[in-house]
Amino acid sequence: MPASSSAQLSEFDLIRRFFTRPAHKAVLGVGDDCALIEGRPGHHLAISTDMLVSGRHFFPDVAPRALGHKALAVNLSDLAAMGAEPRAFTLALALPEAEPGWLAELAAGMLALADAHGCELIGGDTTRGPLTLSLTVFGDVPARMALRRDAARAGDDIWISGTLGDARLALGDCRGEWLLPEPDFSQVRPRMDTPTPRVALGMALRGVAHAALDISDGLVGDLGHILERSQVGALLDVDALPRSEVMASQPEARQLECTLAGGDDYELCFTAPAGSRDTVAAIGARLRLPLTRVGAITPEPGLRLVNREGNPCAYTGSGFDHFASP
Amino acid sequence: MPASSSAQLSEFDLIRRFFTRPAHKAVLGVGDDCALIEGRPGHHLAISTDMLVSGRHFFPDVAPRALGHKALAVNLSDLAAMGAEPRAFTLALALPEAEPGWLAELAAGMLALADAHGCELIGGDTTRGPLTLSLTVFGDVPARMALRRDAARAGDDIWISGTLGDARLALGDCRGEWLLPEPDFSQVRPRMDTPTPRVALGMALRGVAHAALDISDGLVGDLGHILERSQVGALLDVDALPRSEVMASQPEARQLECTLAGGDDYELCFTAPAGSRDTVAAIGARLRLPLTRVGAITPEPGLRLVNREGNPCAYTGSGFDHFASP
Repeated sequence: MPASSSAQLSEFDLIRRFFTRPAHKAVLGVGDDCALIEGRPGHHLAISTDMLVSGRHFFPDVAPRALGHKALAVNLSDLAAMGAEPRAFTLALALPEAEPGWLAELAAGMLALADAHGCELIGGDTTRGPLTLSLTVFGDVPARMALRRDAARAGDDIWISGTLGDARLALGDCRGEWLLPEPDFSQVRPRMDTPTPRVALGMALRGVAHAALDISDGLVGDLGHILERSQVGALLDVDALPRSEVMASQPEARQLECTLAGGDDYELCFTAPAGSRDTVAAIGARLRLPLTRVGAITPEPGLRLVNREGNPCAYTGSGFDHFASP
Repeated sequence: MPASSSAQLSEFDLIRRFFTRPAHKAVLGVGDDCALIEGRPGHHLAISTDMLVSGRHFFPDVAPRALGHKALAVNLSDLAAMGAEPRAFTLALALPEAEPGWLAELAAGMLALADAHGCELIGGDTTRGPLTLSLTVFGDVPARMALRRDAARAGDDIWISGTLGDARLALGDCRGEWLLPEPDFSQVRPRMDTPTPRVALGMALRGVAHAALDISDGLVGDLGHILERSQVGALLDVDALPRSEVMASQPEARQLECTLAGGDDYELCFTAPAGSRDTVAAIGARLRLPLTRVGAITPEPGLRLVNREGNPCAYTGSGFDHFASP
């Protein structure tokens, strides 16, 4: 965020100017002690919170429009992973200072994505502090239809939406871990900066998928949550993992690292009975979103990685952990 | 927060160890992509978010138990101001590091207050970063019974719960603006460190009060929100403002500053028809909470401060603004 403090906006001016719009679906939106929403009959309200910290989840000089998009996208991705339909969100924002141009861009990126999903900003908090965004999102899901982590069953196929690892590939370039040719970097960078939450897919998988989650910390770690919660294991074909053309042109070890442990792609990983393959394929075709079968749930616990010949794969990395990682 | 990093807890261990308890009222609690709650028939869901930043909302060396209490208390206070019954909350937490002893205390302070109000922790997010807490709280309020800021009417009495300014008095001592005798500081300090959200009062005022809010930024600024939203004015008797014995023993100018502009007391300010005075008094008696009539809503806009003789009071301060203040 730029160091200029030319314009001293008050907290209330700031909220009014950039983040207050009339609520259409909520009973009461921004501006009171609380927002008010009405429960949808026969539905549960799905709720998720994510916090993004400067220097940790995004580079301090990130384009504010992309940051606004991403902050909401990662939260909508949690709704998608539950099969919920986005409805509303709140935003708590700590800022070193109130810079109008920067805030206008942040709001534009965030509210454009919100509008695309019919997700209203209904409340929030603004304070001075190290740049931090904390969003809480709300979505509707028909009672007992939510896609939970504890619902995988032995024999289920394991599916992945889209492609894996491009966000990690772009991040590695930004960090200087490797250098991509400019056209390749331009291809993968939007996967890191402006991820696409798979909201329509999550809703389409209601009643089809058993378990689901979004891949934010890396496939191995995230799939591990499904296995642990469902008390099952999995056999995963690392050569089947869907990858972009840019990813497929990388050295083999980097492909493994990015597809298995790269976070931030926000694709969905879900399990579904083998008898639902045609249904899943039809959903992918309707949404024009590749859905790839990458393995199967097993009764014995543990995650076993194999290659296309069925031989064990020696990958030893793990998911991202905010406290274990440097 | 202490600088020790002796124990490296993983993010998942940390959540499990300190912040995961079985959900009783929620359909699904901590541990999935989203929490799930069910709407209460005939009720609206009240939602509020507050963010607390180290060095801004609390001293970096604050006792973690008090911090845990306060972080939830200020959010419950928003539910109280709406007349809502607490139900659940989410916690997003950025920490410089995961220090088990400190986290255990934070959780203890927060969850004790949560239990006292039947408010379940249903989800959250943990990350490394500058110490920041962002909570979102959920409460139930019968449809059309919420105490909104835009509902004050000319002729209404203005009421204040408890006493005003003690939190500001304690803060001034901590900041070296003034020095209180030790027994006085001990009296007022809990008002700053562990405020009491007026939840039972908010619920009791349903159908009695017109407008309400909680005083977090100072009475003048906060009452101003009611006046602006309701398009009315007010006449406020500064000598009638309820104050503790310690406050009443302070120099006159300091009393004015603390009671009119001191934030962080989290008392309720509400308006009610003059015909409801007995009802309000009965509520105060039942809850053993002083409720003091301090002025009246007027049709002409603007806030006029007078003393007990009815002469204008020359106070020129204003409410707290996170960006206008240093």
